[in-house]
Amino acid sequence: SEVKKIAVISGDGIGPEVVAEAEKVLKRTEELFGYSFETEHALFGGIAIDQLGTPLPQNTLDICKKADAVLLGAVGGPKWDNNPSDLRPETGLLGIRKELGLFSNLRPAVVFDCLKDASTLKPEVLEGTDLMVVRELTGGIYFGEKFRRQSPNGEEAVDTCSYNVMEVERIVRQAFEIAQKRRKKLASVDKANVLETSRLWREVVNRVAADYPDVELEHVLVDNCAMQLLRRPSSFDVIVTENMFGDILSDEAAMLTGSIGMLSSASMGEGSYGLFEPVHGSAPDIAGQGIANPIATILSLALMFRLTFNYADAADSIEAAVSEVLNAGHRTSDIAVDKSKAISTSQMGDLILAAM
Amino acid sequence: SEVKKIAVISGDGIGPEVVAEAEKVLKRTEELFGYSFETEHALFGGIAIDQLGTPLPQNTLDICKKADAVLLGAVGGPKWDNNPSDLRPETGLLGIRKELGLFSNLRPAVVFDCLKDASTLKPEVLEGTDLMVVRELTGGIYFGEKFRRQSPNGEEAVDTCSYNVMEVERIVRQAFEIAQKRRKKLASVDKANVLETSRLWREVVNRVAADYPDVELEHVLVDNCAMQLLRRPSSFDVIVTENMFGDILSDEAAMLTGSIGMLSSASMGEGSYGLFEPVHGSAPDIAGQGIANPIATILSLALMFRLTFNYADAADSIEAAVSEVLNAGHRTSDIAVDKSKAISTSQMGDLILAAM
Ligand SMILES: CC(C)[C@H](C(=O)O)[C@@H](O)C(=O)O
Ligand SMILES: CC(C)[C@H](C(=O)O)[C@@H](O)C(=O)O
Repeated sequence: SEVKKIAVISGDGIGPEVVAEAEKVLKRTEELFGYSFETEHALFGGIAIDQLGTPLPQNTLDICKKADAVLLGAVGGPKWDNNPSDLRPETGLLGIRKELGLFSNLRPAVVFDCLKDASTLKPEVLEGTDLMVVRELTGGIYFGEKFRRQSPNGEEAVDTCSYNVMEVERIVRQAFEIAQKRRKKLASVDKANVLETSRLWREVVNRVAADYPDVELEHVLVDNCAMQLLRRPSSFDVIVTENMFGDILSDEAAMLTGSIGMLSSASMGEGSYGLFEPVHGSAPDIAGQGIANPIATILSLALMFRLTFNYADAADSIEAAVSEVLNAGHRTSDIAVDKSKAISTSQMGDLILAAM
Repeated sequence: SEVKKIAVISGDGIGPEVVAEAEKVLKRTEELFGYSFETEHALFGGIAIDQLGTPLPQNTLDICKKADAVLLGAVGGPKWDNNPSDLRPETGLLGIRKELGLFSNLRPAVVFDCLKDASTLKPEVLEGTDLMVVRELTGGIYFGEKFRRQSPNGEEAVDTCSYNVMEVERIVRQAFEIAQKRRKKLASVDKANVLETSRLWREVVNRVAADYPDVELEHVLVDNCAMQLLRRPSSFDVIVTENMFGDILSDEAAMLTGSIGMLSSASMGEGSYGLFEPVHGSAPDIAGQGIANPIATILSLALMFRLTFNYADAADSIEAAVSEVLNAGHRTSDIAVDKSKAISTSQMGDLILAAM
């Protein structure tokens, strides 16, 4: 079959370690299923700041644009936290989203059986929780005009939040389509009782809903959603919302599963192009020790196979292998109850390879 | 002693029922402690829309401004949910905050012993949770310019978020002062890695912090705060944040205590002027049945005595009476395990009176 191009961004902290395991899985997929991949590595985030003086080098963008999909480890760390804005990893993150047109962030929040007890929620409340937050990723207050000015009350800072019909419609349609393939329930989250952007958002959702009569739609105010996620997490299927609300709610949703270290995410552009990364961060405190958990990154690769390449066989195989290894009791230290029995990053990778 | 003026706004739904019980407590306070109050009732919210064609009549504003403090039941309901913006209860709420200069919303989130099990969080995680969200209430994206315009991608909606130094400084100082009287820990929540208003916010917090060296300060990003509230709720003491983040996080914090139906809140202006109301809403589904729980409203009155009038003896007496009645096992239906033994709104009020 056709050679697929994957841009690989290891990034900072534990990024290189977990990405290395995902690359082993990629190789194994070629052997097992006859697919061919060509990978190209690129610098991004803190390491790019250190080596090239910018978090998002042009060459990295070029590599990503030429590719069919991007695999990202993690970026950032305390080393760059006090840098001026243009020399911070986050600025690279916002830049790559905008430049690659990744307008839709998919964050599945599921509970892993072996981590049920890791949640701070009661097991009976958590039971059956399996939701997906669809977050708009290239609009809203993240990308609006920002400036300072003088006011009679001292310096004043301004952020602008805007959304147009096209921006809302494309993400909302995607959310409806995802809901159709799941439990057919969509919660659209906004603050329509206060914000003009939310009122436009809701108008578009209501209009688009007519094309998806099989999907049950509810509008939920963002403050209420923050509560309902705690009260009835399992009642949600797909949640669609704008950039800032999605940032907050997707983290809340991930944390309540207790499985945050195992969750994958996809940031999709037009068509099937996407960037895939674990939800967890660069964990600088354990970087370089070979003990990081590679599962979220390996599952992000599986998500890439599913969403970008439509290689369901490979995705199924990886996901089943992860379950098998976990069911057999193997744990990296982050998820081990008995830390003395914890296995290393590469041991976990090898076990998953073997189980594929 | 001097006669204190209280504006009383019953509002909609269960508002009138729960406020009536708080007024009984007010009377009892006069008898027991020798204080004198003069109350004046005013229309606000849905009922004001129905009777006077506006959610916030000028006469209501005048009554509130002449008073030393305002007691509010609850406003809103499905009846007005589809009204145009100027005929909606929420618009009145935003208006009254702005007109009365109520820039600071204090939302204590505590766990009531008798409701420990009502939380969806594990008891061992919840243990010791007692935090206060200090939310900026008259600035930010709530009150910025809002408009629609045409764009090449269809209609576009715009909201503007701004904060000046004065607006940030007054709320932050108040939060530091509250923290000094509590466990001396302050978490300032922002999104300084993305928003210009958050960067200004953080600058002001860091400058003001020098005046409160005894308070331990941490900066927490809003997405991380949404997670940490779930992971380590008891580690927070005071949380200070801007209007929109505060709306979301204070509801999340309230819900995780499991005690949301019992929580009071204060919205403070300059000096000791304030508006006091229960955190719960107007609960139209149970309105008029005499079964609503008046405790949150009665505790809001106690908060008024504490914060506006400095009547600690009366506040202590009310709070102790509430505890006593709950410890004796009396419950309204919302908090009753055995609903058949639930008492009515006025029975609960009477028991608290008797225990004062
Ligand atoms: C690092 C930050 C800019 C980013 C965001 O807010 O989008 C992060 O929180 C995320 O969710 O990917
Ligand atoms: C009704 C709404 C406008 C209001 C707000 O967002 O401030 C409410 O959610 C609150 O928290 O008091």
